[in-house]
Parts: sequence; C-alpha cells; structure tokens
Amino acid sequence: MKSGFSSASPFRLPSWTIRLARRRQNPIMAARDRMRFVIQLALSNVTARTGGPFGAAVFESQTGRLIAVGVNVVEPTNCSLAHAEMVALANAHLALRHFDLGARGLPRLELVTSCEPCAMCYGAILWSGVRKVICGARAADALAIGFDEAPKPKNWMVELKKRKITVTRDRCRNEAIAVFRQYEQSGGRIYNTRN
Amino acid sequence: MKSGFSSASPFRLPSWTIRLARRRQNPIMAARDRMRFVIQLALSNVTARTGGPFGAAVFESQTGRLIAVGVNVVEPTNCSLAHAEMVALANAHLALRHFDLGARGLPRLELVTSCEPCAMCYGAILWSGVRKVICGARAADALAIGFDEAPKPKNWMVELKKRKITVTRDRCRNEAIAVFRQYEQSGGRIYNTRN
Repeated sequence: MKSGFSSASPFRLPSWTIRLARRRQNPIMAARDRMRFVIQLALSNVTARTGGPFGAAVFESQTGRLIAVGVNVVEPTNCSLAHAEMVALANAHLALRHFDLGARGLPRLELVTSCEPCAMCYGAILWSGVRKVICGARAADALAIGFDEAPKPKNWMVELKKRKITVTRDRCRNEAIAVFRQYEQSGGRIYNTRN
Repeated sequence: MKSGFSSASPFRLPSWTIRLARRRQNPIMAARDRMRFVIQLALSNVTARTGGPFGAAVFESQTGRLIAVGVNVVEPTNCSLAHAEMVALANAHLALRHFDLGARGLPRLELVTSCEPCAMCYGAILWSGVRKVICGARAADALAIGFDEAPKPKNWMVELKKRKITVTRDRCRNEAIAVFRQYEQSGGRIYNTRN
C-alpha cells in the first residue's frame, strides 16, 4: 500500500508535516491520542506559520494505523479549498488509490479533525467513504475567532448517521481551542470572511 | 496573469479539457452561452469517458473572459473531492494566484456549473470568493439518476445571498439533464452512494 505522505498530493503539504507523519510509524490506539496528534499538527502549523490553526488525519479505525495527514494550507497554496480535512481526505485517497474510502476490501477509516467540519468539509465527508468523524473544537469556537464556518444543515449529524457515518464531538475541545487562541495572538490572518 | 489551463492544477484535468479551454480565447458574453460551454464540457467528459456528467467554469462576469474550467474527475483521479465545481475553483485560484477570488483588485468572478452544487460544493463556493453562481440542472435531477447530492441547508441560496453571492438556477436545465441521461445510457458509474 502506497504511503500518502508524499508531496505529490493534490494539496501541497508543508515539508515538516511530511517528516512528522513519516516519523509516526507506530499505530495510535486511543481516540484521545489520535486527537492529540491532530491538535499537534494544528499547533505546529501555527508555529511554523504554514497555514491556519487546523489539523486532521485519517486513521484505520481498528488498527490505529495513520493513513494520511492534513493541515490548513489555504494561504500557502493560494487555494480556498485547502482545509485540513480536505487535505487529509485527498491524501488518504492518494494513499489508498481509490475514490471511495468506504469501498469493499478497504479497512474502516475515520477522520480525526481538530475542529468540527465547516459546510464544505461536511459535504466532503459525505462523499469520501470514511465511516467515522471525531471532532475537537466546535464550529462555534472557530467562529469565535472570526472564521465564518458557514451553515451546515441543522441536522448534519443525523444526515451523516443516515449514511452510516458516526460523529463524536468535543474530544479534547479545550486543547483544540487553545491552538485557535495561539493563532489569534500570533496575528494569524482570518481569511475570506464575507458577512 | 498566468493561465489556469495547465496540468499542474491540484486536480489533474483530462488533456482534452486543457486543449478545449486554450482554444476558447474569445470572451463569452451571454449567460446562456457560458452555460452551453460548461454543458459541452460535461458532455465531452461523458463521451471521452474521463469522469462524471458535470462541467463548470469560472468567468470574469463583466468581460466574459474564461478564467478556469473543471469537469468531474472523481474516478480518473481517485479523489472523491474532484467535482467539476471544485476543479474549476481550484484552477481559478491557480490562475489568479490568490486564495480569495473575491479579493480587492480582482475582477468580479462567477462560477457557471452544469448542475446545482452539492453540499460540499455549496460550502466551497462560500469560501472561494466568487460573487455569482449560475446553475443548469437541479440537484434533484442528479439525484434522479442516483447521485446522492446530500442535503445542503434548506435556505442555502439565502445563506449565499447574505454573503453577497447571487444564485441563478435552471439555465438551460433540459440540456444539462440530457447529459445526465447520456451518462446513464452509456453505463456510467454512480459512485459513492451511501444511503
């Protein structure tokens, strides 16, 4: 199985991310530790000044094997689509060489994200084939520092559940929020706000 | 200004698309003709068997200049995110070298899409910076051939309007639907349906 940690991904990752992911060869078993890993990605993205305060990763649910990582690279790639979740999903597709991460024969996969998905990433999750989503901060927490997360359907978790995708929220929420605060204090840009 | 019609885009376009876009040097002034251009992209994508029955493009609203094109390349790129609208937006960012297509100093841009956006593409439009969206077929028309478009917020057009993005629907709707029928008849795959 091809590694997803290459720079040939649709969204170019900062080189530190690729190094960090390659070093992380051991499976990560506990849900809390998976979340701490993506919060670390978000924090490193802030301190390295390589994008917004968001991190995400795709794991094999059962084995804890890391399949792909993502950080928000909207500014460095000049692409508004390059949210952490989108980057992680694109890299997972690249790693598994399949347009459906829920295809028969593939292990069950989960998306761990340091922040609840925005409207775009919610839609992307529906198409992707991941079976589970685990979120750190709430969308309201991102909104609190100024990111217009844009409305998802009110019953978005129900819609995901209908398609057999479960959602867990508030995993290490405060640690994820702390990264937002650090971004704010470091003068990070709140881009593309319209309202 | 760099051309967006290169194969260095985040989502790899079929080579015929790039040739077709490069040939289209004249501005396209009428909204109907812009729509017919993206429906032609969708149709060519079906007949060339290079992806799903959807096409999109970004135009300068006032001059009719073509900035970027997209077709659905989910299957050939093995990436569930590669909807026509996403590909067109990503290529527009590449062409204009800015993460905000609504940034000061840029011309007003519009997304013309052969089908109403799905939940993901709706969210992407919010972030992108385009000021106007023109849709051919309805989401219900895509659903009718089996694509699970997934629910957007019920008031999605109002949410876009709040952010100063106007939406026009049903432009050449029947011509856009005809491409869906052709896809269906040619045995095109309805991928990643979950419900």
